[in-house]
Amino acid sequence: RMGTETSKKIAVIGGDGIGPEVTAEALKALRAVAGEDAFEFVDYDLGAERWQRTGEVLPDTVLEELKHVDAIVLGAVGAAPGSKSIPSGLLERGLLLKLRFAFDHAVNLRPSKLYPGVPTPLSEAVVSKGEVDFVVVREGTEGLYCGNGGAVRTGTPQELATEVSVNTAYGVERVVRDAYERARARRKEITLLHKHNVLVNAGSLWNRIFNEVGEEYGDVERRYLHIDAAMIAMVVNPSQFDVIVTDNLFGDIVTDLAAAVTGGIGLAASANINPSGEFPSMFEPVHGSAPDIAGQGIADPTAAISSMALLLAHLGRVDQAIRIDAAVAADIAARGADAGSTTEIGDRIAAQLA
Amino acid sequence: RMGTETSKKIAVIGGDGIGPEVTAEALKALRAVAGEDAFEFVDYDLGAERWQRTGEVLPDTVLEELKHVDAIVLGAVGAAPGSKSIPSGLLERGLLLKLRFAFDHAVNLRPSKLYPGVPTPLSEAVVSKGEVDFVVVREGTEGLYCGNGGAVRTGTPQELATEVSVNTAYGVERVVRDAYERARARRKEITLLHKHNVLVNAGSLWNRIFNEVGEEYGDVERRYLHIDAAMIAMVVNPSQFDVIVTDNLFGDIVTDLAAAVTGGIGLAASANINPSGEFPSMFEPVHGSAPDIAGQGIADPTAAISSMALLLAHLGRVDQAIRIDAAVAADIAARGADAGSTTEIGDRIAAQLA
Ligand SMILES: CC(C)[C@H](C(=O)O)[C@@H](O)C(=O)O
Ligand SMILES: CC(C)[C@H](C(=O)O)[C@@H](O)C(=O)O
Repeated sequence: RMGTETSKKIAVIGGDGIGPEVTAEALKALRAVAGEDAFEFVDYDLGAERWQRTGEVLPDTVLEELKHVDAIVLGAVGAAPGSKSIPSGLLERGLLLKLRFAFDHAVNLRPSKLYPGVPTPLSEAVVSKGEVDFVVVREGTEGLYCGNGGAVRTGTPQELATEVSVNTAYGVERVVRDAYERARARRKEITLLHKHNVLVNAGSLWNRIFNEVGEEYGDVERRYLHIDAAMIAMVVNPSQFDVIVTDNLFGDIVTDLAAAVTGGIGLAASANINPSGEFPSMFEPVHGSAPDIAGQGIADPTAAISSMALLLAHLGRVDQAIRIDAAVAADIAARGADAGSTTEIGDRIAAQLA
Repeated sequence: RMGTETSKKIAVIGGDGIGPEVTAEALKALRAVAGEDAFEFVDYDLGAERWQRTGEVLPDTVLEELKHVDAIVLGAVGAAPGSKSIPSGLLERGLLLKLRFAFDHAVNLRPSKLYPGVPTPLSEAVVSKGEVDFVVVREGTEGLYCGNGGAVRTGTPQELATEVSVNTAYGVERVVRDAYERARARRKEITLLHKHNVLVNAGSLWNRIFNEVGEEYGDVERRYLHIDAAMIAMVVNPSQFDVIVTDNLFGDIVTDLAAAVTGGIGLAASANINPSGEFPSMFEPVHGSAPDIAGQGIADPTAAISSMALLLAHLGRVDQAIRIDAAVAADIAARGADAGSTTEIGDRIAAQLA
């Protein structure tokens, strides 16, 4: 459908595996809450199947088109681990990370909330320590994700392979500042995760910026935790966290753990935000393409739907974002042991929003 | 005390914080099980206090002496995070990591076992999925721990800081081989943790060696898991793991999580093994110096004591290693909500061994 003059253009990349299935439900919720005319959706056929058919991952012309949309909705990309047909990481790096880097998605935002009644792998003793409701602000354009590394004597007993973590004051400051702003709007507590006792160069930089910017946020209480200690904290008492800020790889690791302890990656939403607004931001569930359950209609679309709340908030439609969050929370609260099929969950949430 | 001609020489580095407290109990257990004459202990005064007094972290002469002992027992080193007096990481890098690198501790061995009755942050539903008993074989001499990185324009808004992960076929193969050997002697399952979809250079190397060596171990079932997915697996069903092999940093992160889910780092032992036998191996609890509870006599010495089982096994005293493990297991089983003070726990276990 064509949008009206005032409608925003949303690029939709369903991707691989369960990606398209959960994305369909996310768009259903988006249309239900914002009305049929608020957004114009443009589908982009990208992912494993496209690559197998054409050898293309993300053509330059498509990247150029995407540059001009108002936001991108992404399902999931990536072949099954060990898949013979697709080189490891080709889609992740050629599509997902390519978009994060090309569109300067400096702030990778990942909220975690443990809703009452949601099954968690944590014990009752841990859960009863306090409400679990935090957000990880993960840096998205630097660190070990730059693709800055190499190998020599590949395939031989003398092979040497390196990976370089690249960190700049510019990159660290903008994400740290974003995190402080979010902390100020929340419970005013922020935790930096790093490993500065070993990674002294990057660690010193992160520490310095964290403390310097922190001086401007006297109302926000800041603390530092080593990434390994954070693993323990996350399972022993996750209620201690409000805003977490960390680098790209530590953020990748800690957000999967965060998702697991708050009901699983079926529920974990994320936003890849371009802070300057020059490029479109991108909204996606934290989970991957889950090839093992693809095509069965059993993937949980909740994370994809919650990502639409992040999209709406980003586009200034805060009321609608809150309505999605509320509808998701209500649906989760009403779920039995079996939440239902992908479309059943999507239909229930959309019905609440209509 | 002087040792007999046949006694082995053990260097003892109590270190900082709770390090000396738990080490005393570890040695108590060691003497109880092996007899007073089996080992000659030589104390080395190293750590924060020594540095503050003399400005020395690990003098070359001490390093030279340590080279000739049969094994090293280490408590914990490291100042409190944010400690004003000691530069971040100075002791960790100048002492702990220095020893691991100088003595080529390629295999960092970290067993995790959830004993019945031990409080775990995981729910009953997770724990009842199966026995949790696995070992992480962490590479100890490469990766991001090499100290290979730098910074320019330090302290300015133009700062650039890098950290380099260095991986060699030589280094990867020896630890992977060690892990396969351990898997063969256990339940014959091995999991490689990495992030090869992003860290393609290092990831390809790890994958290749893992698969190549795996061909020689046709009786061992191998699989690959991304480090982020491993976070989920570890809290959702840790019983799925037998032997995990991974790089230095991923190993650091996953072993703290492993320790947390199997009763806390108060119980997690580790060995830093020099596979060639050219240099002494080192045995230490996974936990750090815990400055917040130091000096109160409340630190749990169990991890330090269990590390002595790893030491005994390494020195070929397998029966005595088994006796320590059994004594620890029995003590844990008999503990109430309060396990007792550091010395109470140590005395109880030593009494069992005497
Ligand atoms: C698919 C992968 C490249 C990606 C990442 O590592 O960032 C994913 O794990 C995520 O967290 O969004
Ligand atoms: C103290 C620190 C340098 C060390 C490490 O990172 O290896 C510790 O966390 C460990 O796991 O032994």
